Amino acid sequence: MSAVPAPSAAVMNSLSPFDVAPWSQNHLARTEQALSAWVGHGAPAGLGDAMRYAVLDGGKRLRPLLVLAAYEAVCSGTPAAAASDEAALRAACAVELIHAYSLVHDDMPCMDNDVLRRGKPTVHVQFGEAQALLAGDALQAFAFELLTPDDSALPATMQATLCRLLARAAGSAGMAGGQAIDLASVGVALTEDQLRQMHRLKTGALLQGSVLMGAVCGHAAPAAYQALSDYGAAMGLAFQVVDDILDVVADSATLGKTAGKDAAADKPTYVSLLGLARAQAHAQELLHEAHAALAASGLPDTRALAALADMVVRRSY
Amino acid sequence: MSAVPAPSAAVMNSLSPFDVAPWSQNHLARTEQALSAWVGHGAPAGLGDAMRYAVLDGGKRLRPLLVLAAYEAVCSGTPAAAASDEAALRAACAVELIHAYSLVHDDMPCMDNDVLRRGKPTVHVQFGEAQALLAGDALQAFAFELLTPDDSALPATMQATLCRLLARAAGSAGMAGGQAIDLASVGVALTEDQLRQMHRLKTGALLQGSVLMGAVCGHAAPAAYQALSDYGAAMGLAFQVVDDILDVVADSATLGKTAGKDAAADKPTYVSLLGLARAQAHAQELLHEAHAALAASGLPDTRALAALADMVVRRSY
Repeated sequence: MSAVPAPSAAVMNSLSPFDVAPWSQNHLARTEQALSAWVGHGAPAGLGDAMRYAVLDGGKRLRPLLVLAAYEAVCSGTPAAAASDEAALRAACAVELIHAYSLVHDDMPCMDNDVLRRGKPTVHVQFGEAQALLAGDALQAFAFELLTPDDSALPATMQATLCRLLARAAGSAGMAGGQAIDLASVGVALTEDQLRQMHRLKTGALLQGSVLMGAVCGHAAPAAYQALSDYGAAMGLAFQVVDDILDVVADSATLGKTAGKDAAADKPTYVSLLGLARAQAHAQELLHEAHAALAASGLPDTRALAALADMVVRRSY
Repeated sequence: MSAVPAPSAAVMNSLSPFDVAPWSQNHLARTEQALSAWVGHGAPAGLGDAMRYAVLDGGKRLRPLLVLAAYEAVCSGTPAAAASDEAALRAACAVELIHAYSLVHDDMPCMDNDVLRRGKPTVHVQFGEAQALLAGDALQAFAFELLTPDDSALPATMQATLCRLLARAAGSAGMAGGQAIDLASVGVALTEDQLRQMHRLKTGALLQGSVLMGAVCGHAAPAAYQALSDYGAAMGLAFQVVDDILDVVADSATLGKTAGKDAAADKPTYVSLLGLARAQAHAQELLHEAHAALAASGLPDTRALAALADMVVRRSY
């Protein structure tokens, strides 16, 4: 079952002219092709194989889609000449590499000890723990390589800004910091503020960072950039609230990973804190916040971003 | 005992006007102060502690010293106005963060399973494996944060170039790639070419990258940049040859880590391949190559780089 009840009429209306399915399909295909062309080549064989296994052929690619949707939203309001399709595609792949490396390390025995990911054996099961550790490390480095090509038309300012955003989203004040709080929170009663802070870092920072990197690739004006930042914050938190809900209401086969893990691990979640109904209502509120931010952006076409926020909240896995 | 016999008279003469001890002391102090000011702040408490433990109060800081020495060598031949002390210090700390994270992950049970590093319990012994994994990940991200400050006078071109060099030196075609080859080489007979390739990646890439990043901070001209690149390649390989020698001739107390590990792990080394005497001669040859590259650089003052190469080859730990 999906995490949250059907959308309100208002939300439906704002989306009715836009069919997200072909848009997603097209951009997913571009992302898959680029990842396959870029990842793991030039690496020693075993390492390259593990890197490609970790990245290719799986995943919802939400983060790349957010990069590309934000990029296109900004381009809808600026001259095409200022934009850079190549930068957006590189940024899309870079955020996915960070996401993929975090999953590889998360799944390891010393962390979540997961053997199943996207229906396949996890990287350390397939390649051994040492190779999984190295593959994760190499994927993180490669994300920054992708953002700093030396033979491309990407302006240095854009390269530097993209590296800055990605490093902050991935690091100790972003994803890695949120994972550390998560680690320290097992069996601990958190307040809603503390839970929100954990999730803002653990998953929100990279989701919001994806939106911001797309905005940078399109040379967003300050007001639009701020609105997209607000969108990213609301959508990013909604993602985690829904994750918490799905951990309770979905089964492992649908999720492609082990369901019920949070409760089994005695981890604080939005469901354990608010109960299921209030968690669902909270996800819906955050969705409305995300839509409101898009409306405030002044950008003429934010339909793909709107559709992605809806997907985040209404997904069933 | 030190790894290699005393230097030739020619080498001594070229160094005689320069006392490396106060130079090192001064630059080490700057590096330690900067690392302490920058690392682990703003991170959740447990993670920040592990990051600082991994980085502070230990280590030879060879890589930061190479950055600073290369920077100063280039500045000795260019107008001071073009240079950036702040960039060099950030680059010096960034390469050390990459080195430190690699040690944290290397020491973990699934890799080398070391409990002692610089005479202290390793990070996973002190903080647990999960926190060590995260601390390593966060240190890598933080290296790129340090290179991309948004409130500084560092030109974007320099930020982007430094990120490019660091990502390549750290990733699958650099350090992580070399570690993967190392992993796959246990009990395998390598040719000297294969051994050299492994070491060029595993330790050489980051050592050479340090030199190049320092050169970039000083806006090196192409000819000087190439000469420093050659210096970095020779010195980087010499470092690993000497490491192999010390693993045989030194004891654990002197090394601050477990001696005799390579032989115990049946790992190919320069000593196992060439024998001790020829390995020592090879280190000396590489040292001469490094000095020759400095002489060819056209830079007026490369004494600190020369002294660091000597230290690399003549060190006893």
